[in-house]
Amino acid sequence: MSDPGNRLARLRTSLAQAGLDGFLAAHPPNLQYLLGFTGSLGVALITDDDCDLLVDSRYLEQAEQETTGCRVHLVPNPLGEDTRSFLRKPSRIGIEADTLSYAQALRWLSWADPWQIEPTHEFIEALREIKSPDEVEEIRASCLLARQSLDELLRHLSWGASETELAGRLEFLFRKRGAQGPAFETIVASGTRSSLPHARPGDSPVRREAVLLIDFGARRKGYCSDLTRVLLPDDEKVQRVATIVRRAQQAALDMIRPGVSSTAVDAAARGVIAEEGFAGHFGHGTGHGLGLEIHERPRISTSGESTLAAGMVFTVEPGIYLPGEFGIRIEDVVAVTEAGCDVLSR
Amino acid sequence: MSDPGNRLARLRTSLAQAGLDGFLAAHPPNLQYLLGFTGSLGVALITDDDCDLLVDSRYLEQAEQETTGCRVHLVPNPLGEDTRSFLRKPSRIGIEADTLSYAQALRWLSWADPWQIEPTHEFIEALREIKSPDEVEEIRASCLLARQSLDELLRHLSWGASETELAGRLEFLFRKRGAQGPAFETIVASGTRSSLPHARPGDSPVRREAVLLIDFGARRKGYCSDLTRVLLPDDEKVQRVATIVRRAQQAALDMIRPGVSSTAVDAAARGVIAEEGFAGHFGHGTGHGLGLEIHERPRISTSGESTLAAGMVFTVEPGIYLPGEFGIRIEDVVAVTEAGCDVLSR
Repeated sequence: MSDPGNRLARLRTSLAQAGLDGFLAAHPPNLQYLLGFTGSLGVALITDDDCDLLVDSRYLEQAEQETTGCRVHLVPNPLGEDTRSFLRKPSRIGIEADTLSYAQALRWLSWADPWQIEPTHEFIEALREIKSPDEVEEIRASCLLARQSLDELLRHLSWGASETELAGRLEFLFRKRGAQGPAFETIVASGTRSSLPHARPGDSPVRREAVLLIDFGARRKGYCSDLTRVLLPDDEKVQRVATIVRRAQQAALDMIRPGVSSTAVDAAARGVIAEEGFAGHFGHGTGHGLGLEIHERPRISTSGESTLAAGMVFTVEPGIYLPGEFGIRIEDVVAVTEAGCDVLSR
Repeated sequence: MSDPGNRLARLRTSLAQAGLDGFLAAHPPNLQYLLGFTGSLGVALITDDDCDLLVDSRYLEQAEQETTGCRVHLVPNPLGEDTRSFLRKPSRIGIEADTLSYAQALRWLSWADPWQIEPTHEFIEALREIKSPDEVEEIRASCLLARQSLDELLRHLSWGASETELAGRLEFLFRKRGAQGPAFETIVASGTRSSLPHARPGDSPVRREAVLLIDFGARRKGYCSDLTRVLLPDDEKVQRVATIVRRAQQAALDMIRPGVSSTAVDAAARGVIAEEGFAGHFGHGTGHGLGLEIHERPRISTSGESTLAAGMVFTVEPGIYLPGEFGIRIEDVVAVTEAGCDVLSR
């Protein structure tokens, strides 16, 4: 059975290192990564010499078309009793503790004798953290698609349209260019609403004389992009804050290379913002990994330190939020290279 | 503190009945239902006389604007250590076992002394299963918006456009009419692809001479719609199968009234399809509840029996799938009334 990118083989190496005999994988992005299966529900049991994918009737034909390296089985409910019969011999089986529900974990744990079910944390996600050159190119293509869509939106921008209409128009442009859809709920936030870092688009019209913040990304062949662009009105304070945010982003970009700590990258951006007197106005992390999911490893923030390595892909998105006034965030996607970083979204 | 729809009061009654002193709620639709909070991350601790909502800096301003009936607190990570200090006195606290991750449950369980953390199943979801008249009207409005958007799409349908472009155009029309976005990934499946019950739209052009299946729904003010319509080519077998599916749907609708079992509704649709010789070609359940989530209680299938009650809202969506040929599904949304059912999507 073929194994594109050697992913199952790498998982088996990790299993051996962790003293596990097998793994029950149910998190859809992990199934896509390992097996190519893009359905919303399935369970894979991967052991040293076997791989079984259990799906229900909705996904049987699709799973047979999409997957390589595993046998596909039809069961009434992949999360139900039937899966039990695939746990054939006494063994230690890892499960995905971060994404599996507590109730499902309890169900599997109740089958544990003579198997031993072991919670694991980000086990497959750790493999996914280092992207292959092919994956970096897929993410670059997703960023390009998103940028070109925004360019087209802005060429025909009608001031006075609602935030929600612009968000919908942008997502349509993604599709027109071949995206599966948006990678997350597009944010279009005008005026004071831009000070809400995760504002949902509303009915308010967008106005030329106010800040217009657009946080957007497409999903293309499974891979996400995530960018933020801001249209600035001719206002001295807005322009000054935007300059600080740009400098903060550049300071973070300048830090990125293999071996550097993620917290140092965060501190570089945060330091610029604090120096300028806006310390209390940048409440989120500087960035997050992305790939088959919009949020994945690594995390670039004050906590959860990790050491950067070539092939990691993440956002760099400092911001300054002034409640009741406006907010500015600038976000790009970078891949760590041997020499530094490659900005995939420019 | 105000409590629209008496929802917190009803939760407190359920807590007392279950012998619980409080509840830790983190599932976003539950937070929206109980408190009006629409952010993607927050934790509410609800006790007999108190309600605290913990959010991070992204959602502080939004939570203060949206919520009623609770105090909002800023913490670095609502799922982290800080939440512990809100568990003030020894008590039995329910958690959401079906939606909480295993890892998060373990974290909370590790704090358990002198608190006792109890897994619960669909505790708040059970309250949400019976919609208020206002909620039924919101779902009807969401269905109307989706139908009107489809009508507009079909009026200007360009044969030869790709499935993915039509899906994007439809979702844009949702937004234009005031939706927050699609309630789920729109399915546009043409020809043999319609035999995949959960096909993702692809690059194939839609053709007048093939089946065109569109499964679509909008999210409007939080509430979902979910419909499936099929354009039929002039083909005898396709027309015959569509007639059977329509009869199956009508048989299910005719069964719906308070006191009837969900499995009887499923059996009514399934029976018509089996009688006509397509027993192996309807592999999914007849319907699912919807509301603030696209899949919620009740489930209308061969298993998981529940007794219908006025105020329940669910889809009725039998289908016949002929791999390599075509698939037909017809889906509407109904509310159970005292007298029978009200089709919200017509």
